[in-house]
Amino acid sequence: VTGRSVGEPVSPGVGGDRVIGARGAPSGPPEEVRVEVPTGTGSYPVRIAPGLLRSLPTLLREHAAGHRYALISDSNVAPLHGEPLMRAMEAAGLPAILLTFPAGEAQKSREWWGRLTDRLLEEGFGRDGVVVALGGGVTGDLAGFVAATYMRGIPVVQCPTSLVAMIDASVGGKTGVDTPVGKNLVGAFHPPRVVVADPEVTATLPRQERAQGLAEAVKHGAILDRGYLDALRREAGTLLDGDPQATWRTVIRSVELKGDVVGRDEREGGLRRILNFGHTLAHALEQATGYAIPHGSAVALGMVLEARLGERLGVTAPGTAQLLAEVVQEMELPAVPPAGIDAEAMLAATRSDKKGEGGVVRYVLLRGAGEVDPGQGWVHAVPDREVLSLLRETSGA
Amino acid sequence: VTGRSVGEPVSPGVGGDRVIGARGAPSGPPEEVRVEVPTGTGSYPVRIAPGLLRSLPTLLREHAAGHRYALISDSNVAPLHGEPLMRAMEAAGLPAILLTFPAGEAQKSREWWGRLTDRLLEEGFGRDGVVVALGGGVTGDLAGFVAATYMRGIPVVQCPTSLVAMIDASVGGKTGVDTPVGKNLVGAFHPPRVVVADPEVTATLPRQERAQGLAEAVKHGAILDRGYLDALRREAGTLLDGDPQATWRTVIRSVELKGDVVGRDEREGGLRRILNFGHTLAHALEQATGYAIPHGSAVALGMVLEARLGERLGVTAPGTAQLLAEVVQEMELPAVPPAGIDAEAMLAATRSDKKGEGGVVRYVLLRGAGEVDPGQGWVHAVPDREVLSLLRETSGA
Repeated sequence: VTGRSVGEPVSPGVGGDRVIGARGAPSGPPEEVRVEVPTGTGSYPVRIAPGLLRSLPTLLREHAAGHRYALISDSNVAPLHGEPLMRAMEAAGLPAILLTFPAGEAQKSREWWGRLTDRLLEEGFGRDGVVVALGGGVTGDLAGFVAATYMRGIPVVQCPTSLVAMIDASVGGKTGVDTPVGKNLVGAFHPPRVVVADPEVTATLPRQERAQGLAEAVKHGAILDRGYLDALRREAGTLLDGDPQATWRTVIRSVELKGDVVGRDEREGGLRRILNFGHTLAHALEQATGYAIPHGSAVALGMVLEARLGERLGVTAPGTAQLLAEVVQEMELPAVPPAGIDAEAMLAATRSDKKGEGGVVRYVLLRGAGEVDPGQGWVHAVPDREVLSLLRETSGA
Repeated sequence: VTGRSVGEPVSPGVGGDRVIGARGAPSGPPEEVRVEVPTGTGSYPVRIAPGLLRSLPTLLREHAAGHRYALISDSNVAPLHGEPLMRAMEAAGLPAILLTFPAGEAQKSREWWGRLTDRLLEEGFGRDGVVVALGGGVTGDLAGFVAATYMRGIPVVQCPTSLVAMIDASVGGKTGVDTPVGKNLVGAFHPPRVVVADPEVTATLPRQERAQGLAEAVKHGAILDRGYLDALRREAGTLLDGDPQATWRTVIRSVELKGDVVGRDEREGGLRRILNFGHTLAHALEQATGYAIPHGSAVALGMVLEARLGERLGVTAPGTAQLLAEVVQEMELPAVPPAGIDAEAMLAATRSDKKGEGGVVRYVLLRGAGEVDPGQGWVHAVPDREVLSLLRETSGA
């Protein structure tokens, strides 16, 4: 185990010429790397190693000793990983149950939160119970929110099985569910006891899903580390092919970068906002198209659009949007929105985003690739007309 | 304003001969007293003064500056305090809405949590919104949980209007709702920005409701401060009559005692457990009688029973149960359970209490009046047969 704390500062704007894994280790064969993420009251480790998920019982004993464990998983992941892990738990003498919900974002709801909670109550789970979230972003958010609110909070262990969850969603302690009005509108901050990141489980993912996950890695590079962005561009093909070592290095660097940001600002009052880069217009695109665009694609488009917005406003260095467009295209993600997007509908959607405060829509804008403009508290209040003009131009209206 | 921090230690077992208000102030006419309650990441003030609620707009500006305020209140309290406060908010230029739910514990549910959340979403509340919980314990818990989970947490201000909420429930950051299986099974810790305690609003409460609230004050004395317990006994009649100054002193001392405990142990891992004294059997009584016994009466009975349990086990000094029985009777609360209680049903109910860990039921036991026995982590694992034998004896079976 190589201990790697997020000690070395990764300040926005200081990014620079680091390449994936440039920080000493890891260059040899994938070993275990551990990234500590600070929280308001302590820290938790993200443990990253191929095959690590098979050691889950040992990791649970170490990080979340409890009387009983509830593995929560969706109907896709449960047969693949849940059932084998249940056998491993039994063999290790750890009492566990497996709770399954139907796969899909539609189940990230208050209704399923209530049902899973009721199942734990029926099973007689007490405060010494531990929730193990085994799956992608939906599972992590939903199971995390169940744990956050069960008897006012019981421990959760995050075991991301999708690339996007491993690279991004499992780190930072955000949990929650959607409501008919919008995504993630109800939730809580509930840091996990440990994140178990096993890049091996992403090996079987379809190429398209891998690309979706890599959108957030591109974002980490875009806001914090030009060297990482360049490395991602160079290794795009290898990463899309599912190369284990490149995947492992990417998970490590993204977790380091994101962990550093959320460690400095757990609750989104300040620096954490930079992680919203690309996301205001991504959410607007998703809403305006009825979620027809997958999230990673929406983020890729959102980043290119918000970089262009920054260039129009004179905040972002010219050429940045073009560079990002090239990187996302290397990742087989879209750089140009689908034809016929309704600019007015998108603008309206930016206003209902929960980042809106007092009716003003704030955007994270880059200074250049790998660097966020400080703005005011890392955001810029952008007039609607600028956004509308950009969207009209983009949609060819 | 007299600043009073909870700095002076109030260790269990150190209680002793302090009397209400013996710590310097307050002996003259009621002035404003401020008790700081530490949290994991800071602290919040409990501001206590007659008439203070009328200054709500000023207090909100000071402690929870937000763009918009949502006063949440039940159908009993809204006409009495909510509507006048809405006029005060308007006069002060603070944008506010008043959300009302039907009075009663049955509404402390996931359904009403969802409905109130949806109302805030409909009204377009963002992260800069502030929830003001105006009412008794149910309102504080329900509105607090709405705030705790709205967009992963927005500020809440607690304005308790019942004596029990003022003395006890509004301090400590617990929020939550009931499920059909039991009380407070879903929730979150969400410390308020400020607690506005205005003893004047309790003046109009019926004598019986005042008695219900004073049960928790008796508990604070029983576990932490013999002098306070004696003072409550002496002043019982005055307090039941609603004497403003005696009420004000009692709120102060109870908030000091409770604030000190929750400040040392925000999340119930250790010391905070002592606040459960009397509550394991109180909840069991409530469940076994289908909540026919009001909560304060159940707590009064639970304290007497748990003191007797401690005496049987040789942990609690002989005579303690008798002393507590006398104090609660002075408060016009019951000291003997109603006839025909089903001892087996009560025992079964203790096992479903969420304080049960790994199937063992743990009790907080007194060493004597004003002092908790340290036990193991402030609790004792008590064999079911001891509890059953006590309950059978008590119920005359």
